[in-house]
Amino acid sequence: VIAFAPSAYPAEIQRLRARFGDLPVIIAGMAGSDRGWLEVPYAPCPATLADVRAAMHWVEAGRTAIVPGLALDRADAPDVMRGEETQAFGAIAAGFVGNEGLLCHPGTHCKWLCHQGSAVTGFHTTMTGELYAMLATHSILASELRAQAAVDPSFEAGVRAALAGTDILSGLFAVRARAALHRKEHRSASWASGLLIGTDVQTALKSAPFDGGIVGIIGSASLATLYLAALELAGRPALLLDAAHCFTAGIAALAWEHA
Amino acid sequence: VIAFAPSAYPAEIQRLRARFGDLPVIIAGMAGSDRGWLEVPYAPCPATLADVRAAMHWVEAGRTAIVPGLALDRADAPDVMRGEETQAFGAIAAGFVGNEGLLCHPGTHCKWLCHQGSAVTGFHTTMTGELYAMLATHSILASELRAQAAVDPSFEAGVRAALAGTDILSGLFAVRARAALHRKEHRSASWASGLLIGTDVQTALKSAPFDGGIVGIIGSASLATLYLAALELAGRPALLLDAAHCFTAGIAALAWEHA
Repeated sequence: VIAFAPSAYPAEIQRLRARFGDLPVIIAGMAGSDRGWLEVPYAPCPATLADVRAAMHWVEAGRTAIVPGLALDRADAPDVMRGEETQAFGAIAAGFVGNEGLLCHPGTHCKWLCHQGSAVTGFHTTMTGELYAMLATHSILASELRAQAAVDPSFEAGVRAALAGTDILSGLFAVRARAALHRKEHRSASWASGLLIGTDVQTALKSAPFDGGIVGIIGSASLATLYLAALELAGRPALLLDAAHCFTAGIAALAWEHA
Repeated sequence: VIAFAPSAYPAEIQRLRARFGDLPVIIAGMAGSDRGWLEVPYAPCPATLADVRAAMHWVEAGRTAIVPGLALDRADAPDVMRGEETQAFGAIAAGFVGNEGLLCHPGTHCKWLCHQGSAVTGFHTTMTGELYAMLATHSILASELRAQAAVDPSFEAGVRAALAGTDILSGLFAVRARAALHRKEHRSASWASGLLIGTDVQTALKSAPFDGGIVGIIGSASLATLYLAALELAGRPALLLDAAHCFTAGIAALAWEHA
């Protein structure tokens, strides 16, 4: 969602200061992208909180800043994020998560972050949410996917299929095949969601440099609950964290220099 | 594509007989589905040519028949097809392929068949073509995927990424990340197509019970060429077969009882 045209930011900041007091303003997320206020170059990952603080773009010195996103500018698999790094730094700074581990930000584009000490050490983005939305709206499966996915036996069966190695490209067609064969044993929306989220979880756990530990899930309640259930089926305990609290803690940590 | 309303089939058959002579008519494909002329139950797979012939539905005895599709009615991964089995039996009967091996039917829904002797012994369907079309039309990648995918270094890089283990959910986001990082080393349409087709090929080769042999590709020229290139990068020789010739040979094999 593009909330403001670039020219609308200064007036909006003025409105915020009129309401909350004449304070410094630090902005993170898509405001720093080419679709936002002004394009702030990504900071390279791995990055500590101090690295990101040093790379903030001050629109007005000491008054208004934009937080850079993070980029992995690798030859084979580049990746970028804007905003989730601030939530991650917040979860770390507030002590919501341990000294090292994995964070999951479910959504249209799901972000998986590894952190160690005060650094985000790596991340990858998956198109899980967008893919599910396209399937439910535009694919041959659309009529099967009208219901809301939920944590139920069908979702769990979909997750288990993914964990057992069923791939997405062929697994999804099973939804169509069940309809053609008049089979009703699964709620299609839950099963397809389970297959996608199970695949997402398995890939993340495989690629993470950490074997154990609790996975922090930062996101909206209904989707986060699906990821929680999938992670538990994969044998990993997980913890739901409130996105707004993490974000606020991250902005505060970036603002305060604990020198 | 639904070519005819159910009620239009008899008149169309009459037109064909007026033009080509008063011959028996055997119909395969979606005409036998719930979206076609009349629903003919799937024959169970594995199935020989004789099994499918015995399961044909005669609309008029000895005159007009509909070929059943094949179904794998498994608990965990059911699958169905209508039409490709006839092309496969044609390729086998005409001697286009060896005594056992793998056939690939690229398309919106790509079908991979294993055959041995005169039997189709297994198959699976992937949503590769439909997924690519949705990404190019409806996703955040749409503006990057306007070009036509072709066998070029970007396609080959996408295939190699898939063969090296890059998964679809995170691999596709690299297309978006390259754009955000202003990197231009790959043609996005070719790279994304290579990632999807490479994944499709790798899954099929892993799940096939045959280690070697030539893969027969039955399909339209441009898409078949992409699959040919991906199979060769995966170390498997492949052969392009004309879909219409395979289909005709299959209908002929079903019509003639070599008792």
